[in-house]
Amino acid sequence: MDVDIGNALASVASPGVSRASLDRLDERVATAHERIATGRAADEHGYAALNLPERTDPDEIRAAVEPIASPDGGKIDALLTIGIGGSALGAATIVDALDADVETIFLDNVDPEWVHDSLDTLPLERTAINVVSRSGTTAETLANFLVVREAFESAGVDWTERTIVTTGEAGPLRDLAETHDLPALDVPDGVPGRYAALSAVGLVAAAAGGLDLESLLDGAAAEAETLTGSLYECPAYAYGATCHALAARGAQANAFMPYAESLETTAEWFAQLWAESLGKDGLGQTPVRALGATDQHSQLQLYRAGPRNTQVTFVTPQERPEQPIPPTDVDDLAYLGGGSLAELLDAEFRATEASLAAAGRPTVRIEIERIDAFELGSLLYGLEAACVMAGELAGVNTFEQPAVEWAKKATRGLLGGGDFEEARAVEEKTSLRVER
Amino acid sequence: MDVDIGNALASVASPGVSRASLDRLDERVATAHERIATGRAADEHGYAALNLPERTDPDEIRAAVEPIASPDGGKIDALLTIGIGGSALGAATIVDALDADVETIFLDNVDPEWVHDSLDTLPLERTAINVVSRSGTTAETLANFLVVREAFESAGVDWTERTIVTTGEAGPLRDLAETHDLPALDVPDGVPGRYAALSAVGLVAAAAGGLDLESLLDGAAAEAETLTGSLYECPAYAYGATCHALAARGAQANAFMPYAESLETTAEWFAQLWAESLGKDGLGQTPVRALGATDQHSQLQLYRAGPRNTQVTFVTPQERPEQPIPPTDVDDLAYLGGGSLAELLDAEFRATEASLAAAGRPTVRIEIERIDAFELGSLLYGLEAACVMAGELAGVNTFEQPAVEWAKKATRGLLGGGDFEEARAVEEKTSLRVER
Repeated sequence: MDVDIGNALASVASPGVSRASLDRLDERVATAHERIATGRAADEHGYAALNLPERTDPDEIRAAVEPIASPDGGKIDALLTIGIGGSALGAATIVDALDADVETIFLDNVDPEWVHDSLDTLPLERTAINVVSRSGTTAETLANFLVVREAFESAGVDWTERTIVTTGEAGPLRDLAETHDLPALDVPDGVPGRYAALSAVGLVAAAAGGLDLESLLDGAAAEAETLTGSLYECPAYAYGATCHALAARGAQANAFMPYAESLETTAEWFAQLWAESLGKDGLGQTPVRALGATDQHSQLQLYRAGPRNTQVTFVTPQERPEQPIPPTDVDDLAYLGGGSLAELLDAEFRATEASLAAAGRPTVRIEIERIDAFELGSLLYGLEAACVMAGELAGVNTFEQPAVEWAKKATRGLLGGGDFEEARAVEEKTSLRVER
Repeated sequence: MDVDIGNALASVASPGVSRASLDRLDERVATAHERIATGRAADEHGYAALNLPERTDPDEIRAAVEPIASPDGGKIDALLTIGIGGSALGAATIVDALDADVETIFLDNVDPEWVHDSLDTLPLERTAINVVSRSGTTAETLANFLVVREAFESAGVDWTERTIVTTGEAGPLRDLAETHDLPALDVPDGVPGRYAALSAVGLVAAAAGGLDLESLLDGAAAEAETLTGSLYECPAYAYGATCHALAARGAQANAFMPYAESLETTAEWFAQLWAESLGKDGLGQTPVRALGATDQHSQLQLYRAGPRNTQVTFVTPQERPEQPIPPTDVDDLAYLGGGSLAELLDAEFRATEASLAAAGRPTVRIEIERIDAFELGSLLYGLEAACVMAGELAGVNTFEQPAVEWAKKATRGLLGGGDFEEARAVEEKTSLRVER
């Protein structure tokens, strides 16, 4: 990816960062880069994620996927991935951005009607199951898996012939894989779920969909090559450092706005990466998922005229397929006719970027060549490295997410899974109700 | 809808609002309510939106939809709605929340690959077209319509037999409807697009999908009945006033988090409502779309441990369909087995709400009875009235969106649709590029 931070400079925007401040920040980037390089070299927790492009073995993933992608000698039409958070978003990002061969459904919520309807429309005898949970105990994932398993049994379809598991070294899912002789892949050690897109966690679905794992990993590796000690030489660090500087200057929100429908899920993936990695110690930047051009008609008013507390991050492919707009004799629309949707979308992007600059609002532009496996690998790796850099600069523990534990314990207690004081606290809610 | 603002009180949360402050704010709510009532009585611009439940005629909409929903004597399988922003989100919210009879696709972006693929998979001879644009000149909508029209012509399918138009009194779309004798409905006067879900703008798709328009409008009318001069008696005003108070005390973001998969689009609709209505004069609250339980594994870390600048708005149905979780002999999962997904999702909601309260973070709970047409009408109307109240309290012009005009002019200029200084400004971008 290439990054243009021109519209985040103080000469353009407020909040904005001056060139002198960037130069000072670059000294801290150099130090942070040393820390990152040391962490990578020792495969330390979290930093290990940045080694995935060289560590992930696409052949191993394809070999594990092969039996479930052709159960009973046939081929699957659909892949049902059961996971939540980092166990779903990386895979969904890749499958939604690229053009997978099979329909891929993500059961990443426990809404009963939706789960029921999702199962109801699937041809189960032509569907494979991909269960992902590092601990093997994630409540939502395991509850859904129990429901799915029973649905297959009720339909007389052998789920053990078409289930693949990605999990940690031990736990109920690992045991289950051994009991039923299911293909099982490892959630890599030291890689938090939100950084695991380029491991089996994200790539099983991609492999089942016939996507080019090597190109994804090659793109990531090319981005890894750029990690150097200066933000002026490394697009990922330029992005991470600029976000850090803007956040410190008042950009509390970061609206991530790809100009490509197929990158909509990437914005969700980014939101988890950014929120869970940087949202701690009272620090962090609120990620806001947006989509160009659609959300010009929804969010732009706020970003241009609301509080000066938001940066917008654009992601734009430089090449798009053509889709001509037919000529028209309608006077007021003649300028559209004879052009193409690609030209229109690019014009919308440039106009929106300029409209925020004209209002003195900070934006950053991330460019990729086109939407393909190589460029997507580069983008995902670049954003991860940017996030790690932002975490180093903020001095937070980028790779933990301790604040979600409270609700997990409370949920478990409420469902009779043990005695937790958190569950008792739920009952003491303060109420001030206003009823219809 | 019912609203519980207990967890937004200063006794629980920071930022939070004290009971004494709420009492003082309630005096301003009374005055604002008078202004709203006067505006409604005179059908003033914007305020007229709150009269839609009594003004919208479902028979008129169904009568207009009937010919396109059964072209050539057959029935349609799919409805292609072409619109963007308020011309798409209200309809999408309704169709996604309820259970429509026909597949409904929204062309609300001009991504060339996506538009091409969307058209490619549709059975055009069994598809109707619903074009929505008040001005009849919205670039994205009209460009897409030109592309769609040609696709139908190329496939030998007569688009004039299966197209319905919703537009203003005059403009290219109105002319087109007259030329080709298409059924045409009005975008109601004085109702901005983001407040138009309960008019033809939102209800054509609902009617084509066989949804219960009367119940939607009845639910909205029931909510309208609650508009009184006190936040303690009106759920909508309680929500709007609490958001206003929290924003003034530092809640710069409002994460809207329904615990129901089918309300995911409602969160997008809310984001437009909130951003375009309140984001002006340097004021406004950044809406963040979230989804429970999924985003507990993505956003919760930030909302619980990041900056104290966010309120979370939960929306929960009180009744859900059952989906039993089969029993399991796996030790660590036994507590899940024998329960139901509905119980799990409700426990997750209560645990998440309590986890934020335990960390002193403000939340508001909106309850609806269940997800059906009546309750959805109530919810949409209630949120609109809340937004109008928040706008009155902030003293902004809730019903305009002037900041989006700049980019529209620039886009038009860039595409050769006239001479605009905004387009020239686009060429003067400040660059600081870091390349791979």
